[in-house]
Amino acid sequence: MPDSVNLEAKLSLFSEHWTPKILAAYNGNDVMVAKLKGEYHWHQHPDTDDFFLVLKGRLTIRLRDGDVHLKAGELFVVPRGVEHQPVAEEECHILLIEPRGTPNSGDPATAAVKLPI
Amino acid sequence: MPDSVNLEAKLSLFSEHWTPKILAAYNGNDVMVAKLKGEYHWHQHPDTDDFFLVLKGRLTIRLRDGDVHLKAGELFVVPRGVEHQPVAEEECHILLIEPRGTPNSGDPATAAVKLPI
Repeated sequence: MPDSVNLEAKLSLFSEHWTPKILAAYNGNDVMVAKLKGEYHWHQHPDTDDFFLVLKGRLTIRLRDGDVHLKAGELFVVPRGVEHQPVAEEECHILLIEPRGTPNSGDPATAAVKLPI
Repeated sequence: MPDSVNLEAKLSLFSEHWTPKILAAYNGNDVMVAKLKGEYHWHQHPDTDDFFLVLKGRLTIRLRDGDVHLKAGELFVVPRGVEHQPVAEEECHILLIEPRGTPNSGDPATAAVKLPI
């Protein structure tokens, strides 16, 4: 039988940044955790919204028309097609949800390989 | 411009149980918070998985072949078509995600009206 997933326990199993790890499936979406630190590049997902929930630390999601500041317990959904740049001055931990197969970088050529953890 | 959503702040705005409040949209899904206390009835969703993340307190999701115990920071996805009964001995707070229009009770006739908050 499937068991519950403890986010903190899963996050303790890896240390690399910008490499989402798959925790569960929801209707063809991957539910993932990731550790972020530094500036990611500007990108967009033409076919999907991008769900971020900060679990620990702080995350800024830069948009072309302003920044969204998130701390633990805060979420934001970047609408599809909207350019964004995630930036974490210090390491932050997030829960994210994307349709299975979505390149995290917006481009399959530069995307991280998402593996279950 | 859309702003971040603070889960605790949204949860402070209501007290009723078993009435999910809509926080955000993600690809045609409602991202919601709810407060649960007591036993919900057994039900299932034939067309969708059911995503639960516990934010505060404890939740048991009874399945026909065993119970799944969740505490804050733990998630579980009930697969579509699987009968389940959420039970919270003390009040618990959850984040849940369901396709827009999904009756939380599994039956439109008995479902809570989900409103934005």
